[in-house]
Amino acid sequence: MKNTDVLVIGGSAAGLGAALASKSHYPTKRVTLIRKEEKVAIPCGIPYIFGTLETSDQDILPDAGLIKEGVEIIVNEVSSLDGEKKTCLLSDGTQIAYEKLILATGSTPVVPDWLKGVQLENVFTVPKDLIYLDAMKKKLANVENLVVVGAGFIGIEMSDELKKAGKNVTLVELLPQVLPLAFDPDLAGEAESILKERGIEILTSHCLKEIMGEKKVEGVKIEYNDVVNIIKAEAVILSMGYIPNVELAKNLDVTYNRDGFIKVDEYMRTDHPDVFAVGDCAEKRDFFTRKRSKAMLASIACAEARVAGMNLYKLSTLKTIGGTIAIFSTALNGTGFGAAGLTETVAKLEGFDIIAGSFAGVDRHPGMLNNPHKQIVKLIAGRENGVILGGEVMGGSSTGELINIIGFIIQNKMNINQLLTSQIGTHPMLTASPAAYPLIKAAEVIAKEFWKKQ
Amino acid sequence: MKNTDVLVIGGSAAGLGAALASKSHYPTKRVTLIRKEEKVAIPCGIPYIFGTLETSDQDILPDAGLIKEGVEIIVNEVSSLDGEKKTCLLSDGTQIAYEKLILATGSTPVVPDWLKGVQLENVFTVPKDLIYLDAMKKKLANVENLVVVGAGFIGIEMSDELKKAGKNVTLVELLPQVLPLAFDPDLAGEAESILKERGIEILTSHCLKEIMGEKKVEGVKIEYNDVVNIIKAEAVILSMGYIPNVELAKNLDVTYNRDGFIKVDEYMRTDHPDVFAVGDCAEKRDFFTRKRSKAMLASIACAEARVAGMNLYKLSTLKTIGGTIAIFSTALNGTGFGAAGLTETVAKLEGFDIIAGSFAGVDRHPGMLNNPHKQIVKLIAGRENGVILGGEVMGGSSTGELINIIGFIIQNKMNINQLLTSQIGTHPMLTASPAAYPLIKAAEVIAKEFWKKQ
Repeated sequence: MKNTDVLVIGGSAAGLGAALASKSHYPTKRVTLIRKEEKVAIPCGIPYIFGTLETSDQDILPDAGLIKEGVEIIVNEVSSLDGEKKTCLLSDGTQIAYEKLILATGSTPVVPDWLKGVQLENVFTVPKDLIYLDAMKKKLANVENLVVVGAGFIGIEMSDELKKAGKNVTLVELLPQVLPLAFDPDLAGEAESILKERGIEILTSHCLKEIMGEKKVEGVKIEYNDVVNIIKAEAVILSMGYIPNVELAKNLDVTYNRDGFIKVDEYMRTDHPDVFAVGDCAEKRDFFTRKRSKAMLASIACAEARVAGMNLYKLSTLKTIGGTIAIFSTALNGTGFGAAGLTETVAKLEGFDIIAGSFAGVDRHPGMLNNPHKQIVKLIAGRENGVILGGEVMGGSSTGELINIIGFIIQNKMNINQLLTSQIGTHPMLTASPAAYPLIKAAEVIAKEFWKKQ
Repeated sequence: MKNTDVLVIGGSAAGLGAALASKSHYPTKRVTLIRKEEKVAIPCGIPYIFGTLETSDQDILPDAGLIKEGVEIIVNEVSSLDGEKKTCLLSDGTQIAYEKLILATGSTPVVPDWLKGVQLENVFTVPKDLIYLDAMKKKLANVENLVVVGAGFIGIEMSDELKKAGKNVTLVELLPQVLPLAFDPDLAGEAESILKERGIEILTSHCLKEIMGEKKVEGVKIEYNDVVNIIKAEAVILSMGYIPNVELAKNLDVTYNRDGFIKVDEYMRTDHPDVFAVGDCAEKRDFFTRKRSKAMLASIACAEARVAGMNLYKLSTLKTIGGTIAIFSTALNGTGFGAAGLTETVAKLEGFDIIAGSFAGVDRHPGMLNNPHKQIVKLIAGRENGVILGGEVMGGSSTGELINIIGFIIQNKMNINQLLTSQIGTHPMLTASPAAYPLIKAAEVIAKEFWKKQ
């Protein structure tokens, strides 16, 4: 029987982050991380393996940080967990006893088993599994025409990268727009235009009915307005979301929510006080609606991992997750897109009385300096108190941090007045002008609506 | 006698912003903006006129926004103001009566009158005056060797741009580092290295003693450790700071602070309830120390302008300036630098008990994607409660927005615990990795110091 103090299961962002945070907070505790994979893919970098990056070796999560901090890494599969005895059994028969357990078991791509043809050769998903991904890349090398199903972030990034690699790509989405969960139609339309300009065929409001073929994929049947069409293709990539990996938790006396996620409290504890869960396998609640959220992002996982690590042996009411704000960003052909909090569509659907406002400007001043890029900021504010409920951004290379600004605005529950009196730093080479800073100007658009009523 | 409701004097960022905010809040009021200049330079873009931009015509603040909103623009010089009668006399004899007056008269470069040789031909300052700047650029065309005095933002940007234009540049600074007001020695050292790599000669801890020459500049005498040296040069650029333009306010029954700025309250009102002052001419108080601040930034001016515009006819305690956080950013040869709030040096000097922490990472993940750049974040936190007092950043093109994140963290008085539990969005092409996001990692470095004590 091997002994450890803190046992982390899972080697992706959540597990890595949890191990580091545990060691950081409790340096005298032994921390052990078990993972299946010899090498772990940087999850958000996976689409880039298929285009921008030459090999998957360029997308490896480094072990150096873990090793430096003295975390023991075990590459092996966990067969079972015993919640009573607090032990873990590995596939090679090794038993490990732990004091605290952190489940960071991640998620697996949704596969629509009911769909005809889903078992055919050259039907792929996008799992966080380098061996699978390397084999998939090899097979795609001989493919000319492919269909990507699902226009979420993974779907559009895979489409964009495979187009870069010279493929004919058709992107099929059931809903009437790309990125339907993160963006309102206006900004999603901008993303769609870029993808179309790149030569990607986009079919929104189209339903995948069947994958055709004898042994290998030969095409797909899709339906639009009751009309069925056939697209010829030699491969299909399903990017239809992910489901949490929770099988290992079965013997642990923990409960699950309706969506299959492991229930956790704001300290990231499961029902069992010595068992924590973080990342894609752990329940999330939306920051504003307080409803269950299915958002799965490495960045959320890392925040949860920090909170779990801090609360392992000593709870702190100051170190909790108050609800999930999904902060997304991506880049398409040099244009960044970011979203945080509620979209206008979702906010209305959820019953919020809101005012939305947008402003389009340039991310430099004067507007010709240093690779300028059009920048659009959209904000969604509660009508009652002006609190910012969400934001969406399109822009250049600063988009990732600009959406993080909106993330902080949301997390601090700032309102329109606070935004209008906020101080912003600007520089010609780096940002929009102080007099036409789109974030502030979007707040002004909303403020004008308010003032009309007064 | 001409009549207006709101009279704004000054056409740079503060005046422009104040006129727009006035009109935005009080659309039925007539708003008139008087300025001296036919064309107004974008203030922060001025250094780029000397290198990156071809002509100063590319650095013009557009009038389109003002015209669109119905602001009347008068290009003329104000001779005097009558605070009793609430009138303004122009140099052509025109009188304008106003209800509310907003002074946005700006600032003028410091000229050290006591310095021998300061009146020589080819001694320049960097005023916000396009006619002056165009003439200066013409004269500099024939200059091979020049000395820039003062290594604040304007000084280093002018040095960098003139080097780009092929000049031999020597940058002289009295204090022991470049950017002494905004950065601690560590990050200032990084900026210094970049300037040196560009071939700029940097002489810190050097005091300018004399500008030499008969009629034109022939060189400068500088002193270091009691040793005087001579540098040959055909031109000298003085970037030794700016003083507020406040002469016009003399008949207005307003008071001035010890540094010569017009005193204002948090609504940006002077002593006279109908007279507001914004931008470089208006008093500022530091957000944390509450001391008078001499920071002059277009971005501060714009925040003040918004507040003045909103409070003109109806005060709102929700729409005030709670103290100035100078949020600076700049870019040197593709590397961004940003600073917000107190430096470690200043915080200690002011009597704060602080812990500082830094983390160096990469602004992409994996670290070879999409023009990656080294990214350093330094945070300064109060030891007592962990509240973030300041931050400094070095990085790529997202530096301008990353320092704005820190600006929002400061303005929300967030502490280390809040930072560690914050949610951040990340993307391979746009940001650092979620597991090694330098802002959060720097907070962790500080947190470790805290935990040691517990």
